[in-house]
Amino acid sequence: MKLQSFLHGGAPAWGIRQDEHVLLMTAHWPDMSSALAAGPDRLARAAREPGAVLEAAGLQWLPPVVAPHKILCVGLNYGRHVIEAGRELPKHPSVFARYADSLVGHEQPVWRPRVSEKLDFEAELAVVIGRGGRHIPAERALEHVAGYTCMAENSVRDFQKHNAQVTPGKNFERSGALGPWLVTADELPDPAELRVRSYLNGELMQDGALSDLIFSIPTLIAYISTFTPLAAGDVIATGTPEGVGATRQPPRFLRDGDVFEVDIPGVGRLVNPVIDEPQQNKAEQ
Amino acid sequence: MKLQSFLHGGAPAWGIRQDEHVLLMTAHWPDMSSALAAGPDRLARAAREPGAVLEAAGLQWLPPVVAPHKILCVGLNYGRHVIEAGRELPKHPSVFARYADSLVGHEQPVWRPRVSEKLDFEAELAVVIGRGGRHIPAERALEHVAGYTCMAENSVRDFQKHNAQVTPGKNFERSGALGPWLVTADELPDPAELRVRSYLNGELMQDGALSDLIFSIPTLIAYISTFTPLAAGDVIATGTPEGVGATRQPPRFLRDGDVFEVDIPGVGRLVNPVIDEPQQNKAEQ
Repeated sequence: MKLQSFLHGGAPAWGIRQDEHVLLMTAHWPDMSSALAAGPDRLARAAREPGAVLEAAGLQWLPPVVAPHKILCVGLNYGRHVIEAGRELPKHPSVFARYADSLVGHEQPVWRPRVSEKLDFEAELAVVIGRGGRHIPAERALEHVAGYTCMAENSVRDFQKHNAQVTPGKNFERSGALGPWLVTADELPDPAELRVRSYLNGELMQDGALSDLIFSIPTLIAYISTFTPLAAGDVIATGTPEGVGATRQPPRFLRDGDVFEVDIPGVGRLVNPVIDEPQQNKAEQ
Repeated sequence: MKLQSFLHGGAPAWGIRQDEHVLLMTAHWPDMSSALAAGPDRLARAAREPGAVLEAAGLQWLPPVVAPHKILCVGLNYGRHVIEAGRELPKHPSVFARYADSLVGHEQPVWRPRVSEKLDFEAELAVVIGRGGRHIPAERALEHVAGYTCMAENSVRDFQKHNAQVTPGKNFERSGALGPWLVTADELPDPAELRVRSYLNGELMQDGALSDLIFSIPTLIAYISTFTPLAAGDVIATGTPEGVGATRQPPRFLRDGDVFEVDIPGVGRLVNPVIDEPQQNKAEQ
């Protein structure tokens, strides 16, 4: 199943995508995370009940999980990208946090921050947790996965390098994206078979195989749940393959008018235009 | 005013501390963050209305802001602590994120993780945001502060050093604490005059002056709001002074039975026992 979130009557809603329509599911669970917590069997049962059906065209997309409590990102996790960055293979995953307001939904504009010319693109496969837990063993970790989606884990390179901690460069408001939808795990029994590609204005920029991950998805879930509880709707971004803008000759950063796409065949294609951060974005809110 | 959160009839509640009593404020605003967003004038007006009064003794404390959306911590921000750690003075703040479930309230037990013997203590002053915003100029930043509290920003040193990103070592479940209460900013017009002390089993471990901060509170608010929106209830931890356990000879890490205290005269004294992580803390939740 493909689960998507969108604005409906001005409020966040979610449903099951069926070709050109969306079966509205908000009456069963107010948000997607609650449904993911309920588990795939209850979700499948609810999907068989009659319900409101919307035209997919024209819906304003939201990130599939609208406001994940935890978005844990993994850096430098593709063997070839690590070599590209001139580093040694790490012994432990590089983990940092992104806030939900740093990500927009499919087709929504990503902001190039007014304080930096160095917004770079990063295409990633993101894992969405279904059944929560702590101390999850790697050999059972995939049982805790509700599904997969695409992430534009875009990064503001100068702020990322202000300090060893990358948090500032990874958390600019509306600098990245998540979507278009969540594909449930039953459709992708082995995520290691997936490929992550990215396109800038239609030109192929990145093309990596999930089989190249230094730390596999089960290893990441086990490692992360060693220190923090995972819950339904939490997101783990698995890292980006080689080919980001900063390592190109000459470097290529995102600018107003660009269109960046994350394409993961079997999962979806996340498309976002880039615009300059609006001038009215100010202190008083 | 001192604002505190606690369990009341099994649910989170908050109120205004008045000597040995607490004026229950939940009827005015369901949580403290909403009241901080409303601003000090409306809070003062509500405080003058009659309301339920509880005995403070016996209440189970929660972190003053029970589940802050953003907890941004700053590392290596005391000049002397940076020298202790053998580093150069940084040009930009070191910023990382902590999740709310890594912190407990006053008097609640902190967990020494079962996977590490290296839970270390860090006493910090924490700033709580009142009026939100982005691109907040430093010269107006203190107008956005609702108040101050104490944080035990405890860190699991081996996990913190697994990788350049400190997130894992800084986010162990219930490894740190926040509280006891929030002291509103009107009582502390110049936070640079404060001192942060910590005690382990009654023995002084850290004693730093906020005037020693490399990046002042207004500078931190300005820097952080350059990349991410701040909202009422968000927390910024300002860093810890020298004297942490890992730098002692021999090193002194926290263990079951210890009592760690963060004492900031004018703000409060946060006291937490340390216990070993319960064995029943497992995958299924």
